[in-house]
Amino acid sequence: MPRAWTLARRPDGMPVAEDFALIDHPSPPLEAGQLRIANRWLSVDPYMRGRMNDAKSYAAPFALGEPMGGHAVGEVIESNADGFAPGDMVQHMAGWRDEAVIVAREATKLPPIDVPPQAFLGQFGMPGMTAYFGLLHVAEARPGDTVFVSAAAGAVGSTVVQIAKAKGMTVIGSAGGPEKCDWVRSLGADHVLDYKAEGSLVKALSAAAPDGIDVYFDNVGGAHLDAALATARERARFAICGMIDIYNSAEPTRLRYIARIIAARIRIQGFLVSDHMAHVGDFYREMATMVGRLKREETVVDGLDAMPDAFLGLFSGRNMGKMLVRL
Amino acid sequence: MPRAWTLARRPDGMPVAEDFALIDHPSPPLEAGQLRIANRWLSVDPYMRGRMNDAKSYAAPFALGEPMGGHAVGEVIESNADGFAPGDMVQHMAGWRDEAVIVAREATKLPPIDVPPQAFLGQFGMPGMTAYFGLLHVAEARPGDTVFVSAAAGAVGSTVVQIAKAKGMTVIGSAGGPEKCDWVRSLGADHVLDYKAEGSLVKALSAAAPDGIDVYFDNVGGAHLDAALATARERARFAICGMIDIYNSAEPTRLRYIARIIAARIRIQGFLVSDHMAHVGDFYREMATMVGRLKREETVVDGLDAMPDAFLGLFSGRNMGKMLVRL
Repeated sequence: MPRAWTLARRPDGMPVAEDFALIDHPSPPLEAGQLRIANRWLSVDPYMRGRMNDAKSYAAPFALGEPMGGHAVGEVIESNADGFAPGDMVQHMAGWRDEAVIVAREATKLPPIDVPPQAFLGQFGMPGMTAYFGLLHVAEARPGDTVFVSAAAGAVGSTVVQIAKAKGMTVIGSAGGPEKCDWVRSLGADHVLDYKAEGSLVKALSAAAPDGIDVYFDNVGGAHLDAALATARERARFAICGMIDIYNSAEPTRLRYIARIIAARIRIQGFLVSDHMAHVGDFYREMATMVGRLKREETVVDGLDAMPDAFLGLFSGRNMGKMLVRL
Repeated sequence: MPRAWTLARRPDGMPVAEDFALIDHPSPPLEAGQLRIANRWLSVDPYMRGRMNDAKSYAAPFALGEPMGGHAVGEVIESNADGFAPGDMVQHMAGWRDEAVIVAREATKLPPIDVPPQAFLGQFGMPGMTAYFGLLHVAEARPGDTVFVSAAAGAVGSTVVQIAKAKGMTVIGSAGGPEKCDWVRSLGADHVLDYKAEGSLVKALSAAAPDGIDVYFDNVGGAHLDAALATARERARFAICGMIDIYNSAEPTRLRYIARIIAARIRIQGFLVSDHMAHVGDFYREMATMVGRLKREETVVDGLDAMPDAFLGLFSGRNMGKMLVRL
C-alpha cells in the first residue's frame, strides 16, 4: 500500500515528530493524461517550514491530514499520457510519498545533463537555481565583487560559492563546524567563517573582508544579516533567500547595524526562485558547462519513514550539501 | 564679532547642550573669488547627528572645536567674485554661524521660484529633494500605489505626502500627537496614524491599508519599519531615508516581520539625496508647478544662541514641518 506523510497538526515553533503522520495513501487507477510514478528521491527544504503554518504566503499552507508536497524525482511506472513511457525519469512536486499519481503536465523529464537523478533536487534543481538567480540576477554580483554567503555548506550556499568563484568573485562562506568549513574551503571559498566558533561574526567578517562586502547572499538571517550590514560597502546588494535561523523562532531579529542601509545605500531584496523561471534555460546551459568542475555533497536518509527526521535535521544543521530522502 | 557653533565633545547617545560651544569666529578679509555672507536662516537636520560621531560615513565628521556646517540661506554683504553682488540671496553649506566667508562656487543663488527664502532649506531644498527622489526614484512609487510615510509632519514627510497625493497615490502618514496628525490630514493624507496613541502600529497600519502597502518611505526606522514589513504587499519598495528613532540609541532594532522580505519580495533601498543631484532640474521644474498647492509649516527658533536647542528638538519631535533658526 502506498503511503504519504501528512501534517497532523501545525507546529508551534520548532516542529517535532508528533506534528507529522504517515498514512496509507491508496493509488487510484489512472485517468486520461495521468502518470503513476514510483518516487526514488524526495527533497526536504527549509521553505517547507513556512507551508506548515496556516498563513497566506507564496505557497499555499499544507492542509491538515492531506499528503504534503515537495520536489521529488521518480520513475514512471504507468503512463496514460502522450510522451511519457514506463522507465522515464521525471521530476515533479508530489513528494513526501512513495507513489504519486499526477497529470503529465505537472511532470518534467530530467534534462539531458550528465549528473545523477537526485542532483535535479539539488545543485541542478531548485536549490541550484536559487543560488544562480539569487547571486546573478537578484544581487547582480559581478566579477571582482566580494561575496558573503551564509549556510555555505548547504545545497544553495555551496552552489553560490562555486558559481561565484567560477565568475571571478572573492567569496567568504559561513558554516557551522570544522567539517563543513573544510568542505566549503574545498569548493574554492577564499575565506570560511565557522560561526559556531567565532565570538563575533562582525569581527570575523570584517577581518575576512577588510574592504567590506559587495554582496550578501542570505540563507539564515539574524546575526549573519547584521554582520553583513556592518561590513557592507557602498551600494552593496543583499539577496535574501532564506532566514532559517528564525523560521522556528518567535523572537524578533535584532539588528544593530541596520542604519548603515542609508549611508552605504544598501539594497536588500527578497526573492523567490519561482519568479525567475523564464530564464531557466540560461541556468541549465551555464551549469551544464560546469558539470565536471562542480562539487556536490548529499546527506542521504533512507526510507520514507525517516523523512520528518531528515526535514528536522535541516534546522539543526545536520546536512552537508543537499538533504535527501532515498526510497 | 561673528560667532559659530562648534562641537565641544562627541555626544554619547542623545546629544546634550554641553556637547556644543559657541565661539567667536572672526571673519577674515576676502580673498579673490570669495563672498562674505550674512546668514539669515540656518537649517538643523537629523542627518547632522551622524556627523557628530567620529565615524567614517557619507559626510565627514564635524571636527572638535571647528565651526560646524550645514545648509544655510544668507545675503551676500561683500563680494570678491564675478557674478555675485551685495544683496544677492544665496544658499550654501556654511551654516551653524552668523557670518560665512566662502568661495563663490560653494554658493548658489536661490532659484527663481516664488517662495520665501527659507523654503529653500525645506520643501524646496534638501528635505524636499529627499522626498521627491526618495518617493519617485528610489521607491519608484506610481499612481495607484498605497504609500506609507513615517514622520509625516516633518519637513521631508510632509512633502512626501503632498507629492504622493498630487501623483494619485493613496497615502497613510504617521505622526506623533493630535496637532501634527491634523496637519498631515490637511495635506491630503487618506489615513493618519498617531503613533503615540496607537497600541500596535502593525494593527493600525493593517486597518488603514487592509490590502497592504506598496511603498514605505522610512524616516524613523524601528517599530515603523517593522509595521511596514508586516503589511507590505508583494514587490513593495521601501525607501530608507532616515532612522531618527535609533540615531541616539545603542539598542538594536527589533524586527519581528523581517522574514516577510522573502515571500513578499520586498526591496529595501537606502539612499542619500546627494546621489540624485543630476536630476535636480526635474525637481525644481515639477515643484514650481505645484507652488500654489503645496503647504508648508515651519518651526522657527530665533537667534544663533538657541541653535543647539532647535537641533535637539528634532529628536523629541518638537518641530512641525521644517525646523529653522532665524538670525
